Amino acid sequence: MARILTLTLNPALDLTVRLARLEPGEVNRSETMLTHAAGKGVNVAQVLADLGHHVTVGGFLGEDNPQAFEALIARRGFADAFIRVPGETRSNIKIAEHGGRVTDINAPGPQVTEQAQQALLNQLTLIAPGHDAVVVAGSLPRGVSPLWFQGLLVQLKDLGLKVALDTSGEALRAGLKARPWLIKPNTEELAEALDCPTDSVDQQAQAAERLHAEGIEHVVISHGADGVNWFSPGTALHATPPQVSVASTVGAGDSLLAGMLHGLLSFDVPETTLRRATAIAAMAVTQIGFGISDDAQLARLESGVHVRPLTEQ
Amino acid sequence: MARILTLTLNPALDLTVRLARLEPGEVNRSETMLTHAAGKGVNVAQVLADLGHHVTVGGFLGEDNPQAFEALIARRGFADAFIRVPGETRSNIKIAEHGGRVTDINAPGPQVTEQAQQALLNQLTLIAPGHDAVVVAGSLPRGVSPLWFQGLLVQLKDLGLKVALDTSGEALRAGLKARPWLIKPNTEELAEALDCPTDSVDQQAQAAERLHAEGIEHVVISHGADGVNWFSPGTALHATPPQVSVASTVGAGDSLLAGMLHGLLSFDVPETTLRRATAIAAMAVTQIGFGISDDAQLARLESGVHVRPLTEQ
Repeated sequence: MARILTLTLNPALDLTVRLARLEPGEVNRSETMLTHAAGKGVNVAQVLADLGHHVTVGGFLGEDNPQAFEALIARRGFADAFIRVPGETRSNIKIAEHGGRVTDINAPGPQVTEQAQQALLNQLTLIAPGHDAVVVAGSLPRGVSPLWFQGLLVQLKDLGLKVALDTSGEALRAGLKARPWLIKPNTEELAEALDCPTDSVDQQAQAAERLHAEGIEHVVISHGADGVNWFSPGTALHATPPQVSVASTVGAGDSLLAGMLHGLLSFDVPETTLRRATAIAAMAVTQIGFGISDDAQLARLESGVHVRPLTEQ
Repeated sequence: MARILTLTLNPALDLTVRLARLEPGEVNRSETMLTHAAGKGVNVAQVLADLGHHVTVGGFLGEDNPQAFEALIARRGFADAFIRVPGETRSNIKIAEHGGRVTDINAPGPQVTEQAQQALLNQLTLIAPGHDAVVVAGSLPRGVSPLWFQGLLVQLKDLGLKVALDTSGEALRAGLKARPWLIKPNTEELAEALDCPTDSVDQQAQAAERLHAEGIEHVVISHGADGVNWFSPGTALHATPPQVSVASTVGAGDSLLAGMLHGLLSFDVPETTLRRATAIAAMAVTQIGFGISDDAQLARLESGVHVRPLTEQ
């Protein structure tokens, strides 16, 4: 099993509220209200732990409300490399009504100072050597520039880590310049970062070729229920997940990333790697949460994944 | 200065969200999102601390998210007598839009078991002797019956404490049977608990006389901006607050209660007690929060309070 570091620079507390109907301007009574420590890197960490890996979690955490994160870290046996910053980690409120309507209210996170950014870099210099790979996932917090982010990825590479990047917008654009080992954008995120269309397989293959030439080894492009395209030098595979009834897509992309990392770091053959990663993502979709709770169900889902070379249409 | 215990059986995390406009079914971005440890007894405790008293806070606290409460308790130097119960302390979300519309989403609290209820009674037996008075404020959590609540108040009295009660509905109705030292209902709460109209001063005076006869010494009836009526054997006073611009009424009633307790435990003359308590409540109204941040402003507000005997109309 590998030792993997996941970095979440802008984690969030997910506050899920369920009620019959949201009436703006009124006093509403919720049936349940649940808080979860979340953020892409934190989610990836949990699936990696389910797969048996040793995980260190890091990034920036608001010092006024770290409780939910610290409880998760203790429960899952993660090593805690989060830098505490003044203020509260942002909360993302999700209000789910009986009728199916969902209202999101997403908060800005704390401002991350230059001192805190330097503290993270120092921390990583100390702890990175013990790890095989690092997942850097999610958006940038206030105060963190794309240029600094690019430098962070370069430092992680220089420390000898395989860098897997899952972000979007300016952060992805800057991150590509650091030439990470693996990226996992969806079609829109890739098109935006590269300023070129990536709708067709040919367009994606061309983009991947360009990225490979720059030194980015694995380009994993997710299409939700339509499946995954994975390009690496010598490999171009498509996986279609089995049809499942959707409970929630939360954590599906993070599950795919964790599954890809697992297969690659275990030196599984590409077809096995992509099949299992796609099944883990499908499993997330069948749950309100995500994670590998049932090995038999995962095996059933794996057998329902269809993997084929991308040259076959 | 007195030693005062405040009990909040059903505390809440107040989560205040500010945004331009709430669009149901959409992804909304909030400008700020702030969490505060709240609940009537916790609020009263803070104003009592501002007035120089030594305060112990107790009640039931969800063990999964005590952070905000523990931080407040540490910051204010309170003694912590909260019994931890499984689950999360409820969150009350307040969504405030630029246009002034406010949407509340209030969650149910944790279920409080009989064991936890017994643990609180045991705890109070140990700590009550060091205190002069106890404030029991707010609603009952799930699992706590009005009958148990009545027994709690009787026990606190038997332990030699002056009991000040601020609650409503079934809890007030049951609490009155324990004959507390002081109650602070508003007109509607009193009418509901006594099953009789209490709109006019005469009706209130009759209700107070009946309560005095049962052993309830102080009946403080709040009317918001219309002021306060205070009945105790030999005293019937009305106070009208000065006109202030309203920032938020959060904590105003708790401030009034803290002010009344302060005057009574300091043996101030009734007119001074009521004047200061009314000014402290008015001060809360001028703030987004509450509390005594500015002694000079409090003095100005006090001089603007009009106190008169209730026999004068």
